[in-house]
Amino acid sequence: MSACLVQEILQPLQALRLIDPHTHINPHQAASRTLADILGYHYYTELAHSAGLPKEQIEEPGIEPREKVRRLAPWLKHLENTAQYSWLLEMSQQLFGFQGERIDETNWESLYEASLKCMSAADWEQQVLQKSGLDQVYLTNDFDDPLTGFDTSFYVPCLRTDDLVFHLFRPPVQQRLQQAAATSVTDATSLRDAVGRLFEHFTANNARACAISLPPTFSPASVSAVAANHLVSKAFSGGELSAEEQNCLSQFVFWMLAEFCDQYELPFDLMIGVNRRVYEQGVYQGQDLFDSRVSLVQYRELFNAFPGVIFPVSVLAETSNQELVSFAWIFPNVITCGHWWYSNIPVFIERDTRARLQAVPGTKQVGYYSDMYKLEFALPKFAMYRRILARVLAEDFVVARGWSTERAVELGIRVLRGNVESIFGGIQR
Amino acid sequence: MSACLVQEILQPLQALRLIDPHTHINPHQAASRTLADILGYHYYTELAHSAGLPKEQIEEPGIEPREKVRRLAPWLKHLENTAQYSWLLEMSQQLFGFQGERIDETNWESLYEASLKCMSAADWEQQVLQKSGLDQVYLTNDFDDPLTGFDTSFYVPCLRTDDLVFHLFRPPVQQRLQQAAATSVTDATSLRDAVGRLFEHFTANNARACAISLPPTFSPASVSAVAANHLVSKAFSGGELSAEEQNCLSQFVFWMLAEFCDQYELPFDLMIGVNRRVYEQGVYQGQDLFDSRVSLVQYRELFNAFPGVIFPVSVLAETSNQELVSFAWIFPNVITCGHWWYSNIPVFIERDTRARLQAVPGTKQVGYYSDMYKLEFALPKFAMYRRILARVLAEDFVVARGWSTERAVELGIRVLRGNVESIFGGIQR
Amino acid sequence: MSACLVQEILQPLQALRLIDPHTHINPHQAASRTLADILGYHYYTELAHSAGLPKEQIEEPGIEPREKVRRLAPWLKHLENTAQYSWLLEMSQQLFGFQGERIDETNWESLYEASLKCMSAADWEQQVLQKSGLDQVYLTNDFDDPLTGFDTSFYVPCLRTDDLVFHLFRPPVQQRLQQAAATSVTDATSLRDAVGRLFEHFTANNARACAISLPPTFSPASVSAVAANHLVSKAFSGGELSAEEQNCLSQFVFWMLAEFCDQYELPFDLMIGVNRRVYEQGVYQGQDLFDSRVSLVQYRELFNAFPGVIFPVSVLAETSNQELVSFAWIFPNVITCGHWWYSNIPVFIERDTRARLQAVPGTKQVGYYSDMYKLEFALPKFAMYRRILARVLAEDFVVARGWSTERAVELGIRVLRGNVESIFGGIQR
Repeated sequence: MSACLVQEILQPLQALRLIDPHTHINPHQAASRTLADILGYHYYTELAHSAGLPKEQIEEPGIEPREKVRRLAPWLKHLENTAQYSWLLEMSQQLFGFQGERIDETNWESLYEASLKCMSAADWEQQVLQKSGLDQVYLTNDFDDPLTGFDTSFYVPCLRTDDLVFHLFRPPVQQRLQQAAATSVTDATSLRDAVGRLFEHFTANNARACAISLPPTFSPASVSAVAANHLVSKAFSGGELSAEEQNCLSQFVFWMLAEFCDQYELPFDLMIGVNRRVYEQGVYQGQDLFDSRVSLVQYRELFNAFPGVIFPVSVLAETSNQELVSFAWIFPNVITCGHWWYSNIPVFIERDTRARLQAVPGTKQVGYYSDMYKLEFALPKFAMYRRILARVLAEDFVVARGWSTERAVELGIRVLRGNVESIFGGIQR
Repeated sequence: MSACLVQEILQPLQALRLIDPHTHINPHQAASRTLADILGYHYYTELAHSAGLPKEQIEEPGIEPREKVRRLAPWLKHLENTAQYSWLLEMSQQLFGFQGERIDETNWESLYEASLKCMSAADWEQQVLQKSGLDQVYLTNDFDDPLTGFDTSFYVPCLRTDDLVFHLFRPPVQQRLQQAAATSVTDATSLRDAVGRLFEHFTANNARACAISLPPTFSPASVSAVAANHLVSKAFSGGELSAEEQNCLSQFVFWMLAEFCDQYELPFDLMIGVNRRVYEQGVYQGQDLFDSRVSLVQYRELFNAFPGVIFPVSVLAETSNQELVSFAWIFPNVITCGHWWYSNIPVFIERDTRARLQAVPGTKQVGYYSDMYKLEFALPKFAMYRRILARVLAEDFVVARGWSTERAVELGIRVLRGNVESIFGGIQR
Repeated sequence: MSACLVQEILQPLQALRLIDPHTHINPHQAASRTLADILGYHYYTELAHSAGLPKEQIEEPGIEPREKVRRLAPWLKHLENTAQYSWLLEMSQQLFGFQGERIDETNWESLYEASLKCMSAADWEQQVLQKSGLDQVYLTNDFDDPLTGFDTSFYVPCLRTDDLVFHLFRPPVQQRLQQAAATSVTDATSLRDAVGRLFEHFTANNARACAISLPPTFSPASVSAVAANHLVSKAFSGGELSAEEQNCLSQFVFWMLAEFCDQYELPFDLMIGVNRRVYEQGVYQGQDLFDSRVSLVQYRELFNAFPGVIFPVSVLAETSNQELVSFAWIFPNVITCGHWWYSNIPVFIERDTRARLQAVPGTKQVGYYSDMYKLEFALPKFAMYRRILARVLAEDFVVARGWSTERAVELGIRVLRGNVESIFGGIQR
């Protein structure tokens, strides 16, 4: 296969403007202010910590941004081989005019200065969006986010529900819910009313999805009204729930969310497989891992019960990809979605992409999302994906199946952008 | 690696005539009568349904073949990327003279006509077999199949035992058994007698294998005679078995089948890992999925207890392939067999093939079977496999290990055909 | 990607002298005496047995070496495709001057003679080490090994602890321990004293690691002093432990080993995932398999409790590699280590290597160990790894990320040798 052919496919994919359907962007401060915002991304702090930098040095209270970068910089040489480092380098070259091939102790400060100069521009956010070719950026919003003060047609809200499902037994979460919904909760009915108001609020503010991350042990199930009522009453009156009761409450709330997704016609993003706080002494956001012993069969009852809800599913373990491919091949309401977290490196993206393109209807695949916390990351992350996608299209479609490059590009565009629009509603709903 | 080299290996593999060691062909109507027989294959109905076509439209009672194809055709464009679609296209080009690159609303009817013309020929079945290079086609026969009215030396019977193992607690299955065996069953002894008669009947009619598909939860085990006798008596006298008793009965019958395989020297095809009816509202045959949490360790007692029985093993989850490779590397009676169902797409076939060729004795690998319901599918499915096999042989043996192309081809021929003969008995037994 | 580029990277990797950080070499008889020592390696006996050679013929008591090879030779043709066979061929060509492309019935005896002549040289061991470029070879020593009579600065001891952890309930193991430690054990305190003496003895003799292989079901956990004391007292006074008690005792001893590793600053090699004696009638060392249903999450408590202990982790199932990559990405004390046993074939090494190089800090990866029983195996096994490593470096770093070949080679050297020194202590401690 010629490099030429890959380039021919890659070029139009690179020119394509994008919608990023899953990020953690703070719309009030979407771009970075200093290089510390970038190197403070957990991908770098956790890798530097893993390579030997003590957590205390990274997370010292009150540390200045420049000092933080100074501390991290010497450790970058141990991470040079990683895909994560390659994002930093490509971003620095494309956005900050960095000329070198390595970022290290000798040059971090000049990069810091150069990036600071860029970031200080009044229109930096717009510059980044323009250079990254982003038409829309989906957010991850707490359920009690007021969703005010930003343009929700560009920064599209998404109702994140981990707290509701997994932490509703905690009084602070209960209070946040009652406050956000402006109602008091005493039983299953009033809980449903409260959660309904959240959906009302979010959809009124252009929300395009409900989303949740799920541990490998979770199995959605319908809970009887009586049992649910008992649990909600107990939890909201200060009772302490056993582990089993907590799980039952989680199942009840999760099921209710699916019902509201059905009612409000919201896709329900499932991000399956994360174990929280496995490395308890890890850096901020660098404590979670996974257990590959999980199966989508656990979601069988859910997928059957809600044929009208679209479930874009992300799996954390690469070993789950074939199940995802097979479920999306069979269930009309299951969509393959992106390459999440520990699977977001080229070797896994490539394998997953090949399997999905070979066996899932082309209309049911959301190719990629950045999962970014700061806008600067979209550019290198999508660039990585576009290169992989172009190579897979070249190998598996043009070479192996005799497709024209135009047709391969057409499939690439569908996966990169078209499906995001058709599945989540696009720019004009 | 040059495309030339791959071609040099592929050419003799393409010229090789084949035995297809696992199909669902109906020998009384082996070839298709209309394009609806082909598009009615669950690979297309389930994918079209997954892409959005309602089940009711596909399975409307009394629907005419042409109308069925008319309804499916518009959905094919959503499946163009899939390997399954590529089989349809290659088959249409090779067997029906189709000239296009896409089958869609605009041209399905001309393809329908062209294929109808082909299929209407009196010798269509022979034409397909000839073009496909098939010397023998193994069947999947219900245990009460009379095995009459067809040439069992060409359409080789295979005793399929899912019903006996998993549904014997059901009166209709009990009745079918007693009728087929022409004996009545009241206890374990008379059950053994009845099943023995099935083996007698099948082997007298040239059967070459016993076969079964197994759920991921099943673990074969020997059951005590007393317990077995109790369960069989209870089941056959109309008693209702608990889930645990059903499982115990399944284990008993399964073990008995292995004993008969030993006695009758029949290979016992194990197809491990399918969960039935996961998507209950799915189209016909498009409801089953799998749970990758399964291990061949569950079969340890079986493989140890029956050193004289050959077990060609198919696994449904790609994640089970390394276990299969390792078990076949260690156990003399475990054979790697084909690329089953959800693993029957190029990316998984390629990975599995590489691992098997690198670590399992060359004589213990059955490369491929079509699993087809209609004869027309052998051609494109085996063509897909031959291309993958040729590439793996070129890369891993000629390039990486310096083998001559002749030697690589020799290995390919062994895996494609030679082992089918040596393991299942070949054309002349 | 050009073959030239791969060669450019491979050449300096081939020139690199090595430390082999995990072997089963007997330092008193490190090299082979006859070809039977090589073909007696379980990789060949088990494959020949799997291909059809009865165990009784292989393991007939008192069989002469030449006769053993004579019996194995005819079966090699069935294994020619395997990676294991390729080691034999490369070794024969590189070390014994074998000129052929196949070893079979027709030429095994001349190879036997040629190899015998080589092996009879007084300095054969040194010749092999020299040709293999080995600077140090790590051993696997029983806990009661006196560690005398060999140069521990070359053949580096490693404290293997399977017996202590999993078989301490057995009186013979208890006796070996008390004898080796020259103390009597009656309770947890005296057990700790005895085990401490082993660590004292091993570290005084240049041991560089403690090591253990672990079944998929094992989960390390801290055990209360009271419970531990009870179990140890019971076990050492002849009491019979239940399965649950055995497991608890295993957990106690394992945890104690981690404490001693902490105290003595020894890396603790964890080899995770083996099921022993799955094929009970298999040949010597050819009976073990695995269950891919295992997770590193089972080690969460351990990794958290011992931040000061370095854990080089090997996983048996390829499906565990992504977990290993992710744990090493997050936990400072988790190191990726080699490609173990059933994963030690090119297709899995390549996948694992790509994932590790793309996501784990470059300083936290031990690329390869030979796991050999006889010195002659290091050459072909490391050669296989070097070729795979060179190709991955070429594809994923030079081509995909624009690295110079020098830089790619630098990373390769780190993974092949540099990290072995920094993690295990190098030649000069």
